[in-house]
Amino acid sequence: MNTWLLQKEGFDPKDAASDGNRFLCANGYMGLRGVPEEAGSALFPAVTLAGVYDQYQDKWREPVNAPNGLFVRTYFNGQAMTAEDGSPRAHTTALDYRHGIYSRKTDFAAACIASRRFVSMASPHLLADEYQISFRQDGEMTLEAGISCDLWDINGPHLFDYHFQTGETLTASCVTGQKKIAVAAAQCVQADFDAEESVRQDETGVFRVFRRRVRPGETLTLRVFAAVYTSLDTVDPADAARDCCRQAKAAGFSDCLRAHAESWEKIWALSEITLEGDEEAALALHASQYHLNCVAPRHARNMSIPARGLSGQTYKGAIFWDSEMFFFPMFVYTQPEIARSLLRYRIETLDGARRKAAEYGYRGAFYAWESQEGGEEGCTNFNVVDVFTHRPVRTYFRDKQIHISADIAYALRSWYEITGDRTLLREGGAKVILECARFYLSRANGRLDSERVDFADVIGPDEYHERVTNSFFTNEMIRHCLESALLLKEIFADQPAWFAELLKELDYEKDWALLSVLRDRISPPQERNGVIAQFDGYFGLEDCSLDTVRSRLRDPREYWGGDHGVAGVTQIIKQADVIALMALLPERFTDQQVAANWGYYEPRTEHGSSLSACMYALTACRIGRLDEAWELFMKTAQIDVLGGGKQWAGEIYIGGTHPASNGGAWMIAALGFAGLRMRAGKLSVNPRLPRQITRLSFPVATGGKRCRIDISHDGAAISQL
Amino acid sequence: MNTWLLQKEGFDPKDAASDGNRFLCANGYMGLRGVPEEAGSALFPAVTLAGVYDQYQDKWREPVNAPNGLFVRTYFNGQAMTAEDGSPRAHTTALDYRHGIYSRKTDFAAACIASRRFVSMASPHLLADEYQISFRQDGEMTLEAGISCDLWDINGPHLFDYHFQTGETLTASCVTGQKKIAVAAAQCVQADFDAEESVRQDETGVFRVFRRRVRPGETLTLRVFAAVYTSLDTVDPADAARDCCRQAKAAGFSDCLRAHAESWEKIWALSEITLEGDEEAALALHASQYHLNCVAPRHARNMSIPARGLSGQTYKGAIFWDSEMFFFPMFVYTQPEIARSLLRYRIETLDGARRKAAEYGYRGAFYAWESQEGGEEGCTNFNVVDVFTHRPVRTYFRDKQIHISADIAYALRSWYEITGDRTLLREGGAKVILECARFYLSRANGRLDSERVDFADVIGPDEYHERVTNSFFTNEMIRHCLESALLLKEIFADQPAWFAELLKELDYEKDWALLSVLRDRISPPQERNGVIAQFDGYFGLEDCSLDTVRSRLRDPREYWGGDHGVAGVTQIIKQADVIALMALLPERFTDQQVAANWGYYEPRTEHGSSLSACMYALTACRIGRLDEAWELFMKTAQIDVLGGGKQWAGEIYIGGTHPASNGGAWMIAALGFAGLRMRAGKLSVNPRLPRQITRLSFPVATGGKRCRIDISHDGAAISQL
Repeated sequence: MNTWLLQKEGFDPKDAASDGNRFLCANGYMGLRGVPEEAGSALFPAVTLAGVYDQYQDKWREPVNAPNGLFVRTYFNGQAMTAEDGSPRAHTTALDYRHGIYSRKTDFAAACIASRRFVSMASPHLLADEYQISFRQDGEMTLEAGISCDLWDINGPHLFDYHFQTGETLTASCVTGQKKIAVAAAQCVQADFDAEESVRQDETGVFRVFRRRVRPGETLTLRVFAAVYTSLDTVDPADAARDCCRQAKAAGFSDCLRAHAESWEKIWALSEITLEGDEEAALALHASQYHLNCVAPRHARNMSIPARGLSGQTYKGAIFWDSEMFFFPMFVYTQPEIARSLLRYRIETLDGARRKAAEYGYRGAFYAWESQEGGEEGCTNFNVVDVFTHRPVRTYFRDKQIHISADIAYALRSWYEITGDRTLLREGGAKVILECARFYLSRANGRLDSERVDFADVIGPDEYHERVTNSFFTNEMIRHCLESALLLKEIFADQPAWFAELLKELDYEKDWALLSVLRDRISPPQERNGVIAQFDGYFGLEDCSLDTVRSRLRDPREYWGGDHGVAGVTQIIKQADVIALMALLPERFTDQQVAANWGYYEPRTEHGSSLSACMYALTACRIGRLDEAWELFMKTAQIDVLGGGKQWAGEIYIGGTHPASNGGAWMIAALGFAGLRMRAGKLSVNPRLPRQITRLSFPVATGGKRCRIDISHDGAAISQL
Repeated sequence: MNTWLLQKEGFDPKDAASDGNRFLCANGYMGLRGVPEEAGSALFPAVTLAGVYDQYQDKWREPVNAPNGLFVRTYFNGQAMTAEDGSPRAHTTALDYRHGIYSRKTDFAAACIASRRFVSMASPHLLADEYQISFRQDGEMTLEAGISCDLWDINGPHLFDYHFQTGETLTASCVTGQKKIAVAAAQCVQADFDAEESVRQDETGVFRVFRRRVRPGETLTLRVFAAVYTSLDTVDPADAARDCCRQAKAAGFSDCLRAHAESWEKIWALSEITLEGDEEAALALHASQYHLNCVAPRHARNMSIPARGLSGQTYKGAIFWDSEMFFFPMFVYTQPEIARSLLRYRIETLDGARRKAAEYGYRGAFYAWESQEGGEEGCTNFNVVDVFTHRPVRTYFRDKQIHISADIAYALRSWYEITGDRTLLREGGAKVILECARFYLSRANGRLDSERVDFADVIGPDEYHERVTNSFFTNEMIRHCLESALLLKEIFADQPAWFAELLKELDYEKDWALLSVLRDRISPPQERNGVIAQFDGYFGLEDCSLDTVRSRLRDPREYWGGDHGVAGVTQIIKQADVIALMALLPERFTDQQVAANWGYYEPRTEHGSSLSACMYALTACRIGRLDEAWELFMKTAQIDVLGGGKQWAGEIYIGGTHPASNGGAWMIAALGFAGLRMRAGKLSVNPRLPRQITRLSFPVATGGKRCRIDISHDGAAISQL
């Protein structure tokens, strides 16, 4: 079995949304969905750009899909040859995880189309495709290759004022509606055949048209080079895009592919986990690492990764807490510069978080739940559509999920603890931690008649239970944030003047004294038999099974959460919550505590979020529930191999790739199975290898160290590289 | 036009629920719904008992309906003569508001049935009916008169272990399911005709059966005396019920009726508002005063009045804030002993309120939103059924409508201010105010970094907006409660030792100092152009018309409130909220403020509660919007004349009489149109007479004063009686 290859036989348009995700190519700058070259918008093709957002009318803000310069469609005797119309005798799609190459092969009666393509990991603006047709029949061929502007948008359209240029290079230039960001796609080709050539341009794009007579046994090859630039990258994006694809054409497809593949080899050298003993698992782990690596912002130093990667516009292309909780660990241990970029994004969007806090009448930094450029909150007050009334439903992710600020502070502190580097803290990280802590000072609900402080009306990770009081996860993450703020003084004990100046700049003197007051007064959780209540009153909710809750659904697309949802009024939770905290702050809990809470919460967890299984798996490793850890690992790692997963929340499409699960798979393998840990410059492992794995081996490069970890049932080794 | 008579021609079973309310007879101990004697449970007959509650399985607790001793049904040639089956040629129902007498007349081809009946205002356990049949045809008559146990219950059954006794008096004895309260109904009759008599008893009850041949022109009269007792009244309720109806029979129907009518005359002498100039309005005011007077707890000294009076089991037969806000004013000004009883109910249920506060982790007294016996909270967490999924919806009336405690404190203080009486405060009222204030001390949400205190996550009177922060109504009523607590020290300035002892008994020393701290720190409201935001963020909600909101309904029975409701996400409110506060605490606001807020909120108010129009009318009087005040007065006063009103909230039946509107009608007339006010022993008026009224005259008896107020457009007079 090739544990680097995802392959699928056949083509069913119903699977197009899911397959577009599974077969995604991306390089951090953009993502190209895994659909055939000739696909129209019904198959959800997209070249999704990272960090370029637009709002159309009053719809949700979402990332912009660029014009698709890899569009190719062939007609034989006037009949389009498309994978989707049922005419192919066979169709194969493949994705080579090792080198990030998508390929497809489609057998029609008259001809066979085979192609391979990539989004260059060596050149962030470049896409390339090698497209071959082998004819079996005699006939008239028309091949159109160009820039398709027939885009699939969830809340679009976003691109206007199209302007086309033709010649050796085709260019489509346009601007976004809201901020007038210029977007340009260019394309040039190299054809190994002669044909009558012309150009067609209309509202669907600009295309080269090749016409010729073809004969059986003849194979034609077209190599397509495309590029995308925006005015966020350069002043003249059309020019830059043209240059980019001309240079690629000059270098040739093979050289471009080689450079791309070499870049991937370097990424794998830094990050690959070799898993032996189970090939399905090895494939799934490769898939997970591929999908997380391919969306990492390698071209920038201050960007983060959206919750659905670059697989489309789902979740508004926004940055969630997934970045800090699920993406950050793999990167901080293997490619710390990417982890630094994720955190720099937060540092540079501090003002957005301050604006959001002020909007709600608070001080400090309340980070966006769905953060877009500049820290702009992309989350609206209505994120679910009721399937019965088709009306938007007021949701509270935006205003009540206050743990987001503490999550960011947690990652900043982890950065320091794992890498030993203080520069990030000095260059804004400390300010972020202090401002997050300040937000909690103003958000705290103190009682007048006791020293107890509650955090009322919040939502924890388990979003099905809205507006609860004293979410244990939230309260403890807040406490950790306050402690991190206090710790800064020790971290910078050798730079007291700088630190004093920082506090002064932030007008923080009064607040500093309150940090420890709040830390000490946060309400203790309710407990029962060693189980910590997820929030005050949790144990008073109906205690029924997941099956019972599921049986109450009247519509499979119903939203489970809130007061109307089937889960919201019961103890059934969406995802790890108390357990997530125990995974994040393991040293605060005894094994016994973890075991008691795991035993209680796991059967009550829907795992309705891809953020859930990983946290249960990590804690399962700790308490020796290795069979369950293995099962949860496979569930986590296979998510973008098998496709599926929740595609709908109410009437909202939420499909896409799952970088949080992808990062989760790395976390389970490295932090769970191997028990990897880096603190105070000391790397350690504490293996909990499931019986299904015979060997686990992976590199670590952080805090100035380059090591390889090797774990088997016979022992563990850390070797310096 | 007879302004004391409600009359209706015809009979339509579809109207039975509504007519049963409009034609209700009651005496505070029990209510007898206005349906014909022969009605089966499909027509919603009921003898609803005040203060006797039961829970069946896990359904809502609700008041118990007693067996109906006034059941009579006649058969002619084997055919039942019922109003409901479409056979009558004519049917008339009437209610004499002056004397509380229900009458009906039904013309069948063979005979005419005419009856009149009452629930004795002179003898709280007695019901009596005079039933006449005049025959037009020759035939066999079978008449059954007995105790029907075929009861209509919303969440029943409640009565079990039936035991019947026969003889001169029939008795049905049974017990409630939950608390095993014995309930007994007895019946005896006086027939002016001979017949073959027998007894039938089965699961539907126990009945006397009279059979005889009848001839045209013959009129038979049966007088029925029935009584109800429970073991809450006496140790042997069956015996007491038997005695009661035997004595009534011995006295005779006429004497019983005379005693009953005289009692009503006394009530009218104390409370009647004479309105001249508009007979419809005069009728409506009589209806309102009838309906509120007939449900007053005259037989007890520590009972209150349910939100739907004694018209059935709607709203769990529970005591709401309606008692203090809408029932209390008429009684305190006209029949203060009844007002005292309403407040004594709260004093005696203080422990229930303390238990509820403790249940939520608070101190002090958090009164039940739907209070049953002993202050037990009858309100559940699920009070609405979604019409689309048929699933119960989590509502927050129980846990977030915290203004209830302040409303009770408000009425206690009003009692003192209007009557000048301190005994009620000494005998528990002061304790209630202090414990309510203490509840708010523990419920307050203080900030750590400022002196501002919020009340987060509450529901104000406008229940459509759930879980808001800084509900202005709630905050100001809380402030008033704190001030009332502080005022107690002045009120009892001549009894410092007693007051100190009280504080000591309540362990209140520390809390006393906090009262003024909290009073001074409550967050000020958000304002815009002189309009006070109903709660923080209110102005940020969609500002659309009532029609727009209504047009979004997908089902006429949909619940409008909460995150899924059409109103909850907009500025459309259910009922007076800011305006209710301005009506309750008029001296805190200028006319200009009232005018600005009235102008903003009235068009945004659905008046979806019968508690709304009255508050708008009172404030409209103040600012001279007399045409609108008149319209709202008519809407308020006619509610139980015309029937109608909301019958459904989601899938829950909420029909019944509207004592809050009934009390509201008195409030508009006396406090609004006449501008009646009593403070520090001084009675004053400040007339705002709408042009439709030529004269308004009514008695006041409070604070040791008995006066008559007389208002016309020529002037106002207060004359001592």
